[in-house]
Amino acid sequence: MLHDAGSWHYEFNATVASIRERLLALAGTSQDGGYEAVLMQGSGTFGLESVITSTVPRDGRLLIVANGAYGERSIKIAETAAIDVVPLRYPEDTPANPEDVRQTIAGDSKITSVEIVHCETTTGLLNPIEAVGRVVHEAGRSYIVDAMSSFGGIPIDVAALDIDYLISSANKCIEGVPGFSFVIARRDALLSCEGHARSFSLNLLDQWRGLENNGQFRFTPPTHSMLAFSQALNELEQEGGIEARAARYGRNHETLLAGMRELGFKQHLRPEVQSYIITSFHYPAHPKFDFGEFYRLLADRGMIIYPGKLAQQPCFRIANIGRLFEADIRQLLDAIEDVMLEMGCANER
Amino acid sequence: MLHDAGSWHYEFNATVASIRERLLALAGTSQDGGYEAVLMQGSGTFGLESVITSTVPRDGRLLIVANGAYGERSIKIAETAAIDVVPLRYPEDTPANPEDVRQTIAGDSKITSVEIVHCETTTGLLNPIEAVGRVVHEAGRSYIVDAMSSFGGIPIDVAALDIDYLISSANKCIEGVPGFSFVIARRDALLSCEGHARSFSLNLLDQWRGLENNGQFRFTPPTHSMLAFSQALNELEQEGGIEARAARYGRNHETLLAGMRELGFKQHLRPEVQSYIITSFHYPAHPKFDFGEFYRLLADRGMIIYPGKLAQQPCFRIANIGRLFEADIRQLLDAIEDVMLEMGCANER
Repeated sequence: MLHDAGSWHYEFNATVASIRERLLALAGTSQDGGYEAVLMQGSGTFGLESVITSTVPRDGRLLIVANGAYGERSIKIAETAAIDVVPLRYPEDTPANPEDVRQTIAGDSKITSVEIVHCETTTGLLNPIEAVGRVVHEAGRSYIVDAMSSFGGIPIDVAALDIDYLISSANKCIEGVPGFSFVIARRDALLSCEGHARSFSLNLLDQWRGLENNGQFRFTPPTHSMLAFSQALNELEQEGGIEARAARYGRNHETLLAGMRELGFKQHLRPEVQSYIITSFHYPAHPKFDFGEFYRLLADRGMIIYPGKLAQQPCFRIANIGRLFEADIRQLLDAIEDVMLEMGCANER
Repeated sequence: MLHDAGSWHYEFNATVASIRERLLALAGTSQDGGYEAVLMQGSGTFGLESVITSTVPRDGRLLIVANGAYGERSIKIAETAAIDVVPLRYPEDTPANPEDVRQTIAGDSKITSVEIVHCETTTGLLNPIEAVGRVVHEAGRSYIVDAMSSFGGIPIDVAALDIDYLISSANKCIEGVPGFSFVIARRDALLSCEGHARSFSLNLLDQWRGLENNGQFRFTPPTHSMLAFSQALNELEQEGGIEARAARYGRNHETLLAGMRELGFKQHLRPEVQSYIITSFHYPAHPKFDFGEFYRLLADRGMIIYPGKLAQQPCFRIANIGRLFEADIRQLLDAIEDVMLEMGCANER
């Protein structure tokens, strides 16, 4: 990451081409398979906005399945861009029901596109993207999957799932550093988006054309983040690919759950809808528990956790993706036990 | 840059707060002076689009002064966002005339905002942002300055110039790495932008509110690029601030021009409108000159130059900003002489 690459230079272009090719392979496909990988500057949300505002036709309508903060964010993206949006909402602990999607589409011929979050990072809930994909495909609509926190950590075969656009980010399960997002797009779908884009910078089709025409970005890319990402892809391959990484994350998650249960914490979701990516835990009932203090004392021990994002319940979140192993999770559990003692909350959680 | 900062964490928030404060100081102002610094993920173009699409009212009209590819880019940004845009165009070697701006504004009361590029990186041409600013201020319109390749290398006093929004990028004269852009905004102007934003991710007012409310970004920032930027600001201070950096860039530029002249190259612009940031040179007339080969042979020697960006004339560009000193420029000149010999173009340029 410390090399100062020339963003127009052929050496860097070769790295970008390799990144794009390897991303397609991770999605179970290739350019010959009819898919394209497009990198987009900015955070994951920028990639998501790029897909929503570049691919929904001017007179189209977008159905967004929402059961958490990230589904709601997509709704806001669409509304801000004056895109006709139909929300299909569920409680934050309830996965989408494909039958509801089927009926909603069947009753509204104006819906051109359907979007769903794969792993709702609000809670860690997993949505059934396979079953929803079948319904969307049967109805002949465009299918957008926000796989921000799942791609690279959970196997996803974009072609088998009839996904038209999958969005993810450099700094989640691929274990790169932040700076850009990426889109796996079905080429035929992408090529039909001429004139749809509402934003110049976030124009997905133009971004792809730029990369295809001369291998260069239209606008300065975060070169250092991309070099880091290339190395992260090497490390993913060395680990044994997505299956091996999924197994590691799964072990991390099991270790975390067992340890937290032992310490008296309760997870928010039912186990059968809980992903192994990130987990929401309820605040303990102990009157001395204070999340701000809990967070700071853990941070003092080198452990950074996440505040909750639930609309109703007071929760915090622990992610177990990234360059983390079971020993790291055990170290975290020790730190949590230690902090709870220090706060005087060790009993009666 | 190799520290993996938590993007929600208070340590990182403190770095971001310090970056914002120091940027205001570089612009000759402060929060007390009525200005705000907003950081925006993505390249410089993302920051530019953020300002254009967040600050021009829904029923507003934007006058864009254009004398190169970057002025034209702003026009495309506005057009894509369906913003009513009035271009005021000049040839690529001709700076804007403030009197033209005055007359255009006077004759069109619907114009709410005026945008101009400070240093047109197409050629290296400098536009008279002081004189244009006076005209815009007298007419009571909003003033947007694209200072992408000049801020940090050329002193700019935003308050004295009545600039409402100045946009620049992490990886130009501040000498950071790419990954984000920043906006210096007059607070009163910014606060009047409620409801103007056409994009969710690029909403300048919301981005500022997020940073003000809890010191955090709405969406994952490029943490490593920002840590690098903080260090780059330290180095700018150590060098003696913008005046000292301007002097170094000026010396680089003089050394470059004198050496290139000696080698028979001709600069595109008249010296009086040429900045000391980047310079366009005409292709030599020698029949054996081939830019692709010239570029490659220089790159083999570790020297990366830029292709031209002029609409008409075959040119290439040499930038002399960044961590470069006179010795580096002399090394480049030696390499160019060497490459011209190797290509058999040493005579009759």
